[in-house]
Amino acid sequence: MSADLLPVRRALLSVSDKTGLVELATALAARGIELLSTGGTAKAIRDAGLPVKDVSDITGFPEIMDGRVKTLHPKVHGGLLGRRGMDDAVMAEHGIEGIDLLVLNLYPFEKVTANPDAKFDDIVENIDIGGPAMLRAAAKNFAYVAVATDPAQYAGVVEELGANDGRLSAQTRFKLGVAAFNRVAQYDAAISNVLSAIEIPSDEGAKNRKRFSDQANGSFVKVMDLRYGENPHQQAAFYRDLYPAPGSLATFVQLQGKELSYNNIADSDAAWECVRQFDVPACVIVKHANPCGVAVGASVLETYEKAYETDPTSAFGGILAFNRTLDAATAKTILDRQFVEVLIAPDYEEGALDYAKKKANVRVLRIPLAPASRNFIDTKRVGSGLLMQTADDRVVGRDELKVVGKIAPTEAQFADLLFAWKVAKFVKSNAIVYAKDQRTIGVGAGQMSRVYSARIAGIKAVDANLVVPGSVMASDAFFPFRDGIDAAAEAGIKAVIQPGGSMRDNEVIAAADEHGIAMVFTGVRHFRH
Amino acid sequence: MSADLLPVRRALLSVSDKTGLVELATALAARGIELLSTGGTAKAIRDAGLPVKDVSDITGFPEIMDGRVKTLHPKVHGGLLGRRGMDDAVMAEHGIEGIDLLVLNLYPFEKVTANPDAKFDDIVENIDIGGPAMLRAAAKNFAYVAVATDPAQYAGVVEELGANDGRLSAQTRFKLGVAAFNRVAQYDAAISNVLSAIEIPSDEGAKNRKRFSDQANGSFVKVMDLRYGENPHQQAAFYRDLYPAPGSLATFVQLQGKELSYNNIADSDAAWECVRQFDVPACVIVKHANPCGVAVGASVLETYEKAYETDPTSAFGGILAFNRTLDAATAKTILDRQFVEVLIAPDYEEGALDYAKKKANVRVLRIPLAPASRNFIDTKRVGSGLLMQTADDRVVGRDELKVVGKIAPTEAQFADLLFAWKVAKFVKSNAIVYAKDQRTIGVGAGQMSRVYSARIAGIKAVDANLVVPGSVMASDAFFPFRDGIDAAAEAGIKAVIQPGGSMRDNEVIAAADEHGIAMVFTGVRHFRH
Repeated sequence: MSADLLPVRRALLSVSDKTGLVELATALAARGIELLSTGGTAKAIRDAGLPVKDVSDITGFPEIMDGRVKTLHPKVHGGLLGRRGMDDAVMAEHGIEGIDLLVLNLYPFEKVTANPDAKFDDIVENIDIGGPAMLRAAAKNFAYVAVATDPAQYAGVVEELGANDGRLSAQTRFKLGVAAFNRVAQYDAAISNVLSAIEIPSDEGAKNRKRFSDQANGSFVKVMDLRYGENPHQQAAFYRDLYPAPGSLATFVQLQGKELSYNNIADSDAAWECVRQFDVPACVIVKHANPCGVAVGASVLETYEKAYETDPTSAFGGILAFNRTLDAATAKTILDRQFVEVLIAPDYEEGALDYAKKKANVRVLRIPLAPASRNFIDTKRVGSGLLMQTADDRVVGRDELKVVGKIAPTEAQFADLLFAWKVAKFVKSNAIVYAKDQRTIGVGAGQMSRVYSARIAGIKAVDANLVVPGSVMASDAFFPFRDGIDAAAEAGIKAVIQPGGSMRDNEVIAAADEHGIAMVFTGVRHFRH
Repeated sequence: MSADLLPVRRALLSVSDKTGLVELATALAARGIELLSTGGTAKAIRDAGLPVKDVSDITGFPEIMDGRVKTLHPKVHGGLLGRRGMDDAVMAEHGIEGIDLLVLNLYPFEKVTANPDAKFDDIVENIDIGGPAMLRAAAKNFAYVAVATDPAQYAGVVEELGANDGRLSAQTRFKLGVAAFNRVAQYDAAISNVLSAIEIPSDEGAKNRKRFSDQANGSFVKVMDLRYGENPHQQAAFYRDLYPAPGSLATFVQLQGKELSYNNIADSDAAWECVRQFDVPACVIVKHANPCGVAVGASVLETYEKAYETDPTSAFGGILAFNRTLDAATAKTILDRQFVEVLIAPDYEEGALDYAKKKANVRVLRIPLAPASRNFIDTKRVGSGLLMQTADDRVVGRDELKVVGKIAPTEAQFADLLFAWKVAKFVKSNAIVYAKDQRTIGVGAGQMSRVYSARIAGIKAVDANLVVPGSVMASDAFFPFRDGIDAAAEAGIKAVIQPGGSMRDNEVIAAADEHGIAMVFTGVRHFRH
């Protein structure tokens, strides 16, 4: 349908981001490519001493309405949309000259509206009309026209022109066209997100944008296809946000090992988000979406040893995440002892990486630490629907804990309670976590009634030969009845942390007092399903 | 910024979907509104005997390049973008007349590309360039211009014109403008999805579109804001797909009860998807994302009684879903006995609804049954990323089961094995389900090692005074060791269904033979986390 290599003879440049503009224009001019431009872009090119023609000279129509109408003209769009060969006669008849390359980026709508105080008129004026029209026209006509919409693309275009005697290939034009359509999709998604969050067209309406817009649009960039999904008969891929938050899972670099699987990525996220909550060195081991061992300690090795002991059976084939550089000794201890699916750390000692190479299958991920900045919005897919919620980034501080019974926890118990609470936040509900000396003793996950989660935590502790008496217990939601506390007392639990808020709180507190158990309320629940 | 009520004097109509066009044009013409149009739309209006002016007469520029360029002209875009009052002089100077109403829908790109055999050129030609440009121009200038992009909007526009002496309000123009931007976002999302799934610009490239495009764009429509998210400190909303699949959760109608919560919706989805797998009458009770009781039976009442008995504790405050019309007797039995968060059924007897009114808080949902058509793609959010996978819609048939040991299941056991398998698919991994006589006996959910899930299933059965001996067991993934089978034998399990595929399958099969347990392999795994 299109000749493979086509010459670029005329280029139209119109950019709001001037990065790399002069270099590009210089390179194009040096190849004898005629430059067309508008407004500030034309000025910048002219100031660089390069010849440039104004679009209004081409159209014979001035820029009007403060620039609202300048390129929406058949001379421009015919030049972008004309099919070379097929439309030559009609182009000649109407004096339309082909535009072979469009370099354009859009008014900064996303940047302007990222400011919650943006004025309504600023929001509206930053909706680019002419820009997307040109991008889309050029992209549609990729068979003959190339389009660049991101300064990061300029060098490649210049290089290919140089390598091909001033011509670009059909494949390059197609890829650039797709990138332009991708960009327009992002742009129009942002406009719909912002405008459909505004009820009344005014500054006040703009200020009171709804948290959840009437239409929610998202764009994601594919990182990799996956061998399969949660199960082998499902196909899958992993995508990232357009702008991943520093420190988030999506910023990982894989240093070695087999390809990540769907379940690897899901579990890695749970492990990484859990471990990066801690300021002190910590280790989290995840299996089937749940932490099965968590510990903090003075050294990385200590955190691993303590986390591992919680549940050695489940740790087998687990995802291990650390919030400190992994040292060689710890790496050796781990890899000599157990099968590991994924290792995650902010960094690795050289010796640790050397040792990991002996287990070439182990996936080793580096994720640079950054101040916790999780997703702003989390989502859950249901049948033809999507649940959206602000992320559960609530952190409960020591000063928020309310001692509700007669017995106050000791300082050591306070520390263990807060530790257990942080872990419980990442255990599937109903979640019960037993902990002692800054390590998990038993984790009861994913049960339909709270009392079974408590029983499981106890069973697992016993099976792992860990001593429950003297431990603390965290519960992700309140106890509806006193039976959970009675069972905890029997197991030897000495302090409990839970949200409170049950109709029977008094009964539950009385049970704790009766058993000599200290109880604190957080006032915060952490369901995670 | 804009006068509230503004008259509509001139309208431009250009639609690919002609639904309601003539009625609209007739109503507009009757109000003395001047009609402008192009091509087929102009012909349809003219054929209806209405006066209409061709856009090319306005622009003085013919439609060229097979319609690629017809409206991309300052006379059109100036008419759409001109700020009444502010731009009057420049409009007069250039002979630009204001266009007060745009009625336009886009080339059917989504429809054309829904066909996997669509030719590459058809895909490209159905990318509308002029249409989105006009929609966006009119929408941006909502302060003065109204835009309709969906025949469903026509009646409202005509009605408001009638009520306001030929004028539309600023609020209406804004809402219509936002709707236009929403539509354009959907359209550009579709283009990016399709084009970024094509590697080579050719019919073969179009035919071999990637399952997962390089950029994935989605648009969702808000159904309702929710009181809060998974936890009270999280904000949330529920959205649906642009085109919900018949029979999916998002098609629900709430007949009574309190507002649905985030967790209600998530659990309702699990209950509904699980229950609609069954052809015979079935009941599923869900709590904390897991089925805690499932049964099929001859009557709806029987299914409920059997499902409830699995775990009466967890059933308290559960989500109950049925795949048959809920009769009055069953409704009374349920509501007299237990606290219910949500009732779901394809329909209700009048007596059932009457009885439900006595418990006014109970949320009652009607979801019309339809042939199972789940989400095409499921997603899971991780840190700044998104896992996408084809939905787990695999159904294992009787003829796929492979008897791998020396003992063949009886016909009754086969039936129970297939029943248990369907339930296990909806239990969080690791999942173990004990079942007998088409009902769950014990459900072991969400454990980090399979053997604990088996233990929990057994403990729960005993606690509910249900008899395990003679039951069958389903496991959502293979048994890595024989210990799971040894434990099952001890509990009295007589038949097992599982995917198979462990390195130690021989050892596991030998254990089954040894214990007199029948074992079948599905060859299919159903992890669900």
